Amino acid sequence: MRKEMFQHEISVLRDTFRRLIRRHAKTNITKLITKTHPADMAVLYRFFTDMEQKTLFDLMMDTEQVSEFLTELDEPIILNLIGDEPPEKIAKLFQKLGVNDQADILALFSDEKTQSVLDLLNAEKQEEVEEIMSYPVDSAASIMTTDIFTLHQNTVAYEAIKELQKQEKSEMVFYLYITDDDNRLTGVISLRDLVTTPPETSLVNIMTKNVVSVRPETDQEEVAKIVARYNYLAVPVVDMDDSMLGIVTVDDVVDVIREEATEDFLQMAGAGKDREILLKSSWENVKSRLPWLFASWVGGVLAAFIIGKFEHMLETTVALAAFIPVIIGMGGNVGTQSSTIVVRGMATGRVEAGGELKLVYKELRVGLILGVLYGMLLGVFTLLPFIEAPASLGIIVGLSICSSMLIASFVGTVVPLVLQKIDVDPAIATGPFVTTSIDILGVTLYFLIASVVSGVV
Amino acid sequence: MRKEMFQHEISVLRDTFRRLIRRHAKTNITKLITKTHPADMAVLYRFFTDMEQKTLFDLMMDTEQVSEFLTELDEPIILNLIGDEPPEKIAKLFQKLGVNDQADILALFSDEKTQSVLDLLNAEKQEEVEEIMSYPVDSAASIMTTDIFTLHQNTVAYEAIKELQKQEKSEMVFYLYITDDDNRLTGVISLRDLVTTPPETSLVNIMTKNVVSVRPETDQEEVAKIVARYNYLAVPVVDMDDSMLGIVTVDDVVDVIREEATEDFLQMAGAGKDREILLKSSWENVKSRLPWLFASWVGGVLAAFIIGKFEHMLETTVALAAFIPVIIGMGGNVGTQSSTIVVRGMATGRVEAGGELKLVYKELRVGLILGVLYGMLLGVFTLLPFIEAPASLGIIVGLSICSSMLIASFVGTVVPLVLQKIDVDPAIATGPFVTTSIDILGVTLYFLIASVVSGVV
Repeated sequence: MRKEMFQHEISVLRDTFRRLIRRHAKTNITKLITKTHPADMAVLYRFFTDMEQKTLFDLMMDTEQVSEFLTELDEPIILNLIGDEPPEKIAKLFQKLGVNDQADILALFSDEKTQSVLDLLNAEKQEEVEEIMSYPVDSAASIMTTDIFTLHQNTVAYEAIKELQKQEKSEMVFYLYITDDDNRLTGVISLRDLVTTPPETSLVNIMTKNVVSVRPETDQEEVAKIVARYNYLAVPVVDMDDSMLGIVTVDDVVDVIREEATEDFLQMAGAGKDREILLKSSWENVKSRLPWLFASWVGGVLAAFIIGKFEHMLETTVALAAFIPVIIGMGGNVGTQSSTIVVRGMATGRVEAGGELKLVYKELRVGLILGVLYGMLLGVFTLLPFIEAPASLGIIVGLSICSSMLIASFVGTVVPLVLQKIDVDPAIATGPFVTTSIDILGVTLYFLIASVVSGVV
Repeated sequence: MRKEMFQHEISVLRDTFRRLIRRHAKTNITKLITKTHPADMAVLYRFFTDMEQKTLFDLMMDTEQVSEFLTELDEPIILNLIGDEPPEKIAKLFQKLGVNDQADILALFSDEKTQSVLDLLNAEKQEEVEEIMSYPVDSAASIMTTDIFTLHQNTVAYEAIKELQKQEKSEMVFYLYITDDDNRLTGVISLRDLVTTPPETSLVNIMTKNVVSVRPETDQEEVAKIVARYNYLAVPVVDMDDSMLGIVTVDDVVDVIREEATEDFLQMAGAGKDREILLKSSWENVKSRLPWLFASWVGGVLAAFIIGKFEHMLETTVALAAFIPVIIGMGGNVGTQSSTIVVRGMATGRVEAGGELKLVYKELRVGLILGVLYGMLLGVFTLLPFIEAPASLGIIVGLSICSSMLIASFVGTVVPLVLQKIDVDPAIATGPFVTTSIDILGVTLYFLIASVVSGVV
């Protein structure tokens, strides 16, 4: 009985492959490749050198596993592995791959290279691949499997089972899709219902008629939501005439959900949206991380400018400077909490139209409670004799923390809601916008409160 | 042909239910309930008032849909709905639910209430529920389905199909699990292979023998990784004797992946780990968000203390205060980028043992490049005549930004790596630890650099 593949086993396997490569033991390597799950091979590849990757891949080219291996492999590694190979070799490799996997790989190449590979495919394959490539990235079409098989609704159960026995290629046959005379999708039958039905029954009598389907251009995130909500194993993709183009299977949906979560994570932290950032060079890292830092730089510079305007106040009360970090820090953190809760709530369907005002109101209440608590806590702290400070400093700092936290929870909640309304992905822009504006608003409020209180007290 | 359920349809459905409830049109409500997918009902429930929820639930209690509905419903709503019902009513409801769903619901109740419900179940059910409740929360046992059916390996194909026809209850029969004389799991057959095999073949001859299985106590995140990596539809859960206890199906894995991502999001933002935080009261929000803010408060107070130590410097060069926000802000943001990349990389298996040093080295390089760029940019900016400043301010600020960004990328990378080594969930502690330490380190460095440069220049 094979147990899960643990971290430890991955290391052992990696070392074994390395040893065999050093000894040029080709037969043993091929044997080990066929015994290793392609998904595990894909994980191992993250730890091999370029040379090791190429050596193993040349041996893998002739195995049946190469197709599943490439589906599981990280994109930068695919590019590294076959990006420089001549079109002929890639066209040969494509014979082992599904149309969708071919389209995915071509999407990594330059237009010129893509064309030269396409030219080498036969006319029918070429057309299929080009059709898939014509749909937007991250659409249902880009993740669907086109190797499907449908049956006419007048087929009887035992004929359907016979048909099934002829299909070798179709992936994940657990549902049978049923069509009418016009080739329109009219129903679906689970394999289980088919098996447990009398052999002479017409499929039309046992099929489920309300089939939930998606269009090829539907966003993959939307497809994932449907599959997750209704616990489907697959969802059919149909064109405008309700004719079936393919299916999106749950294993691809699992990948989409993880990938979308990773993208959201990176975007919220202002680190771009490249899921494979860990595999990219330092320069590419710098390039994807630079823009958000620029937003934050602008915020910081504006804050410096505002503080400069209050120079005279700082001259009389130097102690004011000491509390700048805590005021913008606490504001920034409350704002990040609020925006994370809202952005994630949108992604999981928990923030939906109609509840926005209630949500803003609740976040304001939370911001106020937290602001009052920490305002008092910090106000008391300023009374400690660690810095030369006027008696009013406690009131200034306490009020500032309180109001900056209140405003931050408002900004953190409203920004993603507004972004969604105007059709900008809330995950992309929320992070930079919220922290930058809180930096600026925080210091402005602080020094305004300081001038008012100093004038009054 | 039914298309996806869009936001708009949810609103229409909600309004229809509301209208029917106001008119007390019970028959129509029941009709609409049976026509609505239980998963959609669960989404609708997020928008109903307490009264509406109760009214609809009383009518739903008698439908077949109540079981799937409760599985899909958010926990706080379940508690709100049946938390105050007498044990007898809950025991009656339990007759419609699977053992696992019963255990999930009981986990929401007080020990006392749980016991009084358990007392009302028959001895066999009671034992089953108690067994599941004895495993850790978030383990394979807590998400497995126990309604499984196994076949002896000497069964022949046509008998297996007959057996299958008798099974009404078993969920998701797409794999048949095969056992030997000692009831040990020895193989698995897909329904498709069973259907396409000659009727007299023994299952032992067509089954796949290397079954990947998990233990009841395996963490659900680990189970999700296995299902996602190998594209399984289900994974069997076996005890120490390899005897099958249940299966974890891919639809539950999809939920686990989304839930774990949500928890990581909230934890990274220091907003607790309660996935249902949007449904909780303001006070509960305050309680789960307070602790991280306290960490940040401590950081801010220490920063204030450190700045206090440099009071004399601020007195001579007030302009130093103006750049405090940008220095800690840029450091904090680079640190957040690094830690998010690393924490997410760990969650998706992209950071694995052996690559740590290379990772730290790369992040340091990225931090240095970004630091030099923004250091120069800010150094030049200080030359603008918006504040009275000595000529050396540009050098001080530029050097400080550069070193604070370098250190922040180091801290952001190392903290999650160390936390994982000592078995603390990196998502929980990374956020607070990184931002707090960068606040403190940032201002310390800034003023140290300022004293050195002022002394030298």
